[in-house]
Amino acid sequence: MIKGKRLLVVSAHAADYVWRSGGTIAKYIQEGAEVCVVVLTFGVRGESNDLWKAPGATAESVKEVRKGETLAAAEILGVKNIEFWDYDDYPIVVDKALEERMVRKIREFAPDYIISHDRFDILNPDHNTVSDLVFRCSVMSNSNGVKMEGTKTTKQMQIFGFEPHQTELSHYVPGQFIDITPVYEKKVAAMKCFKAQSHLIEYYTQRAFMRGNHARRLSGCQDYKYAESFARTFPVVSTELL
Amino acid sequence: MIKGKRLLVVSAHAADYVWRSGGTIAKYIQEGAEVCVVVLTFGVRGESNDLWKAPGATAESVKEVRKGETLAAAEILGVKNIEFWDYDDYPIVVDKALEERMVRKIREFAPDYIISHDRFDILNPDHNTVSDLVFRCSVMSNSNGVKMEGTKTTKQMQIFGFEPHQTELSHYVPGQFIDITPVYEKKVAAMKCFKAQSHLIEYYTQRAFMRGNHARRLSGCQDYKYAESFARTFPVVSTELL
Amino acid sequence: MIKGKRLLVVSAHAADYVWRSGGTIAKYIQEGAEVCVVVLTFGVRGESNDLWKAPGATAESVKEVRKGETLAAAEILGVKNIEFWDYDDYPIVVDKALEERMVRKIREFAPDYIISHDRFDILNPDHNTVSDLVFRCSVMSNSNGVKMEGTKTTKQMQIFGFEPHQTELSHYVPGQFIDITPVYEKKVAAMKCFKAQSHLIEYYTQRAFMRGNHARRLSGCQDYKYAESFARTFPVVSTELL
Amino acid sequence: MIKGKRLLVVSAHAADYVWRSGGTIAKYIQEGAEVCVVVLTFGVRGESNDLWKAPGATAESVKEVRKGETLAAAEILGVKNIEFWDYDDYPIVVDKALEERMVRKIREFAPDYIISHDRFDILNPDHNTVSDLVFRCSVMSNSNGVKMEGTKTTKQMQIFGFEPHQTELSHYVPGQFIDITPVYEKKVAAMKCFKAQSHLIEYYTQRAFMRGNHARRLSGCQDYKYAESFARTFPVVSTELL
Amino acid sequence: MIKGKRLLVVSAHAADYVWRSGGTIAKYIQEGAEVCVVVLTFGVRGESNDLWKAPGATAESVKEVRKGETLAAAEILGVKNIEFWDYDDYPIVVDKALEERMVRKIREFAPDYIISHDRFDILNPDHNTVSDLVFRCSVMSNSNGVKMEGTKTTKQMQIFGFEPHQTELSHYVPGQFIDITPVYEKKVAAMKCFKAQSHLIEYYTQRAFMRGNHARRLSGCQDYKYAESFARTFPVVSTELL
Amino acid sequence: MIKGKRLLVVSAHAADYVWRSGGTIAKYIQEGAEVCVVVLTFGVRGESNDLWKAPGATAESVKEVRKGETLAAAEILGVKNIEFWDYDDYPIVVDKALEERMVRKIREFAPDYIISHDRFDILNPDHNTVSDLVFRCSVMSNSNGVKMEGTKTTKQMQIFGFEPHQTELSHYVPGQFIDITPVYEKKVAAMKCFKAQSHLIEYYTQRAFMRGNHARRLSGCQDYKYAESFARTFPVVSTELL
Repeated sequence: MIKGKRLLVVSAHAADYVWRSGGTIAKYIQEGAEVCVVVLTFGVRGESNDLWKAPGATAESVKEVRKGETLAAAEILGVKNIEFWDYDDYPIVVDKALEERMVRKIREFAPDYIISHDRFDILNPDHNTVSDLVFRCSVMSNSNGVKMEGTKTTKQMQIFGFEPHQTELSHYVPGQFIDITPVYEKKVAAMKCFKAQSHLIEYYTQRAFMRGNHARRLSGCQDYKYAESFARTFPVVSTELL
Repeated sequence: MIKGKRLLVVSAHAADYVWRSGGTIAKYIQEGAEVCVVVLTFGVRGESNDLWKAPGATAESVKEVRKGETLAAAEILGVKNIEFWDYDDYPIVVDKALEERMVRKIREFAPDYIISHDRFDILNPDHNTVSDLVFRCSVMSNSNGVKMEGTKTTKQMQIFGFEPHQTELSHYVPGQFIDITPVYEKKVAAMKCFKAQSHLIEYYTQRAFMRGNHARRLSGCQDYKYAESFARTFPVVSTELL
Repeated sequence: MIKGKRLLVVSAHAADYVWRSGGTIAKYIQEGAEVCVVVLTFGVRGESNDLWKAPGATAESVKEVRKGETLAAAEILGVKNIEFWDYDDYPIVVDKALEERMVRKIREFAPDYIISHDRFDILNPDHNTVSDLVFRCSVMSNSNGVKMEGTKTTKQMQIFGFEPHQTELSHYVPGQFIDITPVYEKKVAAMKCFKAQSHLIEYYTQRAFMRGNHARRLSGCQDYKYAESFARTFPVVSTELL
Repeated sequence: MIKGKRLLVVSAHAADYVWRSGGTIAKYIQEGAEVCVVVLTFGVRGESNDLWKAPGATAESVKEVRKGETLAAAEILGVKNIEFWDYDDYPIVVDKALEERMVRKIREFAPDYIISHDRFDILNPDHNTVSDLVFRCSVMSNSNGVKMEGTKTTKQMQIFGFEPHQTELSHYVPGQFIDITPVYEKKVAAMKCFKAQSHLIEYYTQRAFMRGNHARRLSGCQDYKYAESFARTFPVVSTELL
Repeated sequence: MIKGKRLLVVSAHAADYVWRSGGTIAKYIQEGAEVCVVVLTFGVRGESNDLWKAPGATAESVKEVRKGETLAAAEILGVKNIEFWDYDDYPIVVDKALEERMVRKIREFAPDYIISHDRFDILNPDHNTVSDLVFRCSVMSNSNGVKMEGTKTTKQMQIFGFEPHQTELSHYVPGQFIDITPVYEKKVAAMKCFKAQSHLIEYYTQRAFMRGNHARRLSGCQDYKYAESFARTFPVVSTELL
Repeated sequence: MIKGKRLLVVSAHAADYVWRSGGTIAKYIQEGAEVCVVVLTFGVRGESNDLWKAPGATAESVKEVRKGETLAAAEILGVKNIEFWDYDDYPIVVDKALEERMVRKIREFAPDYIISHDRFDILNPDHNTVSDLVFRCSVMSNSNGVKMEGTKTTKQMQIFGFEPHQTELSHYVPGQFIDITPVYEKKVAAMKCFKAQSHLIEYYTQRAFMRGNHARRLSGCQDYKYAESFARTFPVVSTELL
């Protein structure tokens, strides 16, 4: 049951969480989960190619547009709890402060699930950096010898990986399909907030259709029209076969 | 929910299903699932080393002992629906008749899940043969152009793979842990029916402890004392993260 | 240069070659290559689910529809040289006669390239059977000790693998992207001949868009709007970096 | 022949070397090898969960208990040469000083074999850090252009990797089994020094039984009752098949 | 110690065993091992390209040349125990009789080691067939329930795989290097018996040099000038680190 | 066509580019390409073992010899554009300045192809460091939000990986063979400039022969006598099958 579950999403750049998990986020919120989104960078250097083509674009102006777009998208998805940590990207450089902030965030939010970047993206080293960061911090968060004032040790949570842009070249294998049919319109609307990236809107709209096709084929369930997929870091652990 | 689910288990030799999935079977039966076990061979040639040491042992006498033991084990697990197809082992040779019988069995039983041997066992070619057989037959069973009198096309079912004896050398990766704590005693009792294989009883008893440790560690759930693990053929497809 | 090149396409079922390589075929024909398509089965049992839903459908009636559709598709693509070997599918059973016929076909056509099914399709054992058949026959065709009346030994040709339906689960990795922008309309029109499979038409239309996106991203060439991808069996061997 | 061989063991935390290689260490010492154990951290933050449950536990008190336990274990194993480098764990941060100290240690001890953490542990980033450190330092140690006062360049040594806790998820493959039957009691006694981790004592006791079973099965040698396994970094290089 | 060891070599075609293991064979014989070589086919169809270019070449004439060459090579290597089973190649077809003959051979010879083709050769399906055959037959040979008149069950032996022609494309990884420096001249002389394949003589002469370089680099032992490498099927199981 | 193409080669140590890509470089220059070679270090600590054996050798004297040798080699290959960045090796430490210099170099040279170290070299951590550096910098170079005065954003270029010394242990797979027959003598002459490394001259001379053999076998083209191979980072993207 989704109601009452806690889902933490960590996004390297401003739009990653929308393209890759917007449907799952919208669904979790709609069904009563607590969702927190951490956006590490606005993607000013690495993921704003079209915005830089505007005359007179500056890092600040690009950042403003990105922030406006992603806040609009978050609102459509129903996300109230979103944080912008405003690091530089391309490259994202991890230091001790970022590491500690992430451990603290995980402990304070105490997620049942974390969704972030999968281990390897052949085209985007920032995604790899964030994947590694989130994983290491989850381990520290779970260890009760890592003392951090005002925090409580977490229990091992499941960690899921976003689909990278080119999946096969990035050794990505879907381990979890989530039906997003009931919230599909919200995801499409949220993606449309990123006006300068129309090619990606079509790309990820089609991807939801493709993953829906896969989900139907693998489950025999004809109700799954649109889906998102994620890599699994850990196996399923449960009291029945899933 | 387990109640009402249909689970088909296909075992290359007489004891495979007990060592590798006895706990899951006992649990499914205890909680109201329908379970059918197909035993393809008695393992007379390949998995009865100790029985052949008995003076005057013959293929028939070995087969009788194996059959008695596995029926006793099945009874302890609560299995009422068990079939002995009585093929030769070492090697198991697949012919058209066996293929059709398996397709028919899958269609008639219409399982939600199949558990059988995983793709590769470095020490046992029969296991590989059966893995391949079961998979191919499931595909044919699911195709409505494969006409077979008196049968109905099945829907895609999930297929799980047994742990091979030496997992790492067989490229086995656990994709699903099942807590078997509530039925652990039944599994141990069932294993003890195979008197001539006492080393395996201890081996798989310890394995349940080890997988229980893994299940706790990966889930944070301290109730999981004993577990079985299976490989996944397909990803999880569901309406929530699992 | 495509002109004068010889391309052999081997398709397990009647439509495989259209979904997966229709654009490449159309392009090769349009630019003056010789293309031969071998269709091993009509896919009556395994890939005609919707046709079997027609009242009174029989193996013969299904076969007729499939043949008509694939001939219509071939005509749109410009394929004049197409052969129907009319084997049964689900499963395709390879015997010595089929093997020899394939070796003979390869020798007689003497292709520069073969396109057929890639090594592993997680959902379709027939595709794996054909992949293996084509590869083994190419090896025999290339060996001058394999005597076959009226044939000439071939030189080693490049062999490419179709995209399977679910690429990541089938360990498929694109090794060659082909721009099909100039013939995209032909491919779409050819796919539309398979009236009973409208979901696949949309699926593979979107796939051409997705692979076009990938091709642009990987090459920096903005002209590539639609593409097909193939697995490579062998590395590129050439006089310059490609 | 073990006598006279030199074995260096590098352990990320205070107990790693006991769980994973205690038997091999005891055997090497018993048969006349020189063994040196380097313990990089006491595992205060990452591997002392139970100790932190003691009322009034502090980093210092936890460290004292850990040090006492591991010294007791070392004594049972016969280890006289053990060094505590006392770095922080969770995370272990590698700097130039640590790197140089490790190169110097390798050169001064001049091991025939190094045992340390294997390349990837899915649950413990510190283990990965140490694996990488040891490997890089062995390369520098072997290069005669890396000048370091008072040291002599080493020859290429074999490097073995510990079993991680969850082997299959960590892509661990045993490449070397060592029979520890003659020293099994010592290993069990040494493990019992870690009083707060009784679940691990049972876990690694069973693992020795399991690896003994594997060793017998793979070698046909019935004398191997208990074993440890290690990953190989390099192939066997020898004058006969092993 | 090599003296007294029993080594069985199974070669798909007449020359495979010379190119890939001629040095190891010569060494084992020179140092007092028992070596038996089984040549399954003369390689008339698949590995005699140059012989077929002789005017008037027939299957019989090619076979005679191949037999003469391989006998000459065997004599140089010191092989007295060589059997020609004279199956057809390209393709080698395995039937029940061949399987039983191989099981019988393994039981009668009772090897400590088997060397044959490794699991996958990207360019030679016959090699894959033989690899699979030998492995399956070794399993049956080791099982005491597989009754075969006049034979004794074997113990598990180590199984090593030949280097395929193009190693990286065949996923070949060296797991065992054998120094062949003392018998290098014999190997070169034996290879020269295959007059029609002078390009392979140079190829495998250089390979011995390359593997010698690798063996030195990995072991620090400067005496290894020439080497052969093999894949390992199983890990090393021993009483010390190797 | 090679004429007019721009090729950037990044070499961790002074001789890497000659052993691994000297033929390709010579060919590209001979046929009218622009080639730029960046040598990051002189390999004083890691790749000058023999030079350090000279009496009185110092870091400066070793560096001078290395520089002289590599300049002589470059001249033979026809390289006019070569830069020595003179970093320390063993280990190469990447800092922000190096990263920015590399991005700038890529942007200023605007290569169609980059050749550098492949992802993993089991024996040389410096090679892995450089592989990672070059890849990350290429990504930044291609992103128009990464502002750097006086530079222009590049288009995605193809990136090729050198063969490591021991290919199979380094998971190296050839993805591109380049015929170097027309410039083979130049490569041999260039290698001979490294007088202290005569064993490598023979090693890489034989490698060119071996890769030539592979190239012929895979392409059927008998003109390829000597070749170099490279790993591909990305698939081929083109308008025809290659």
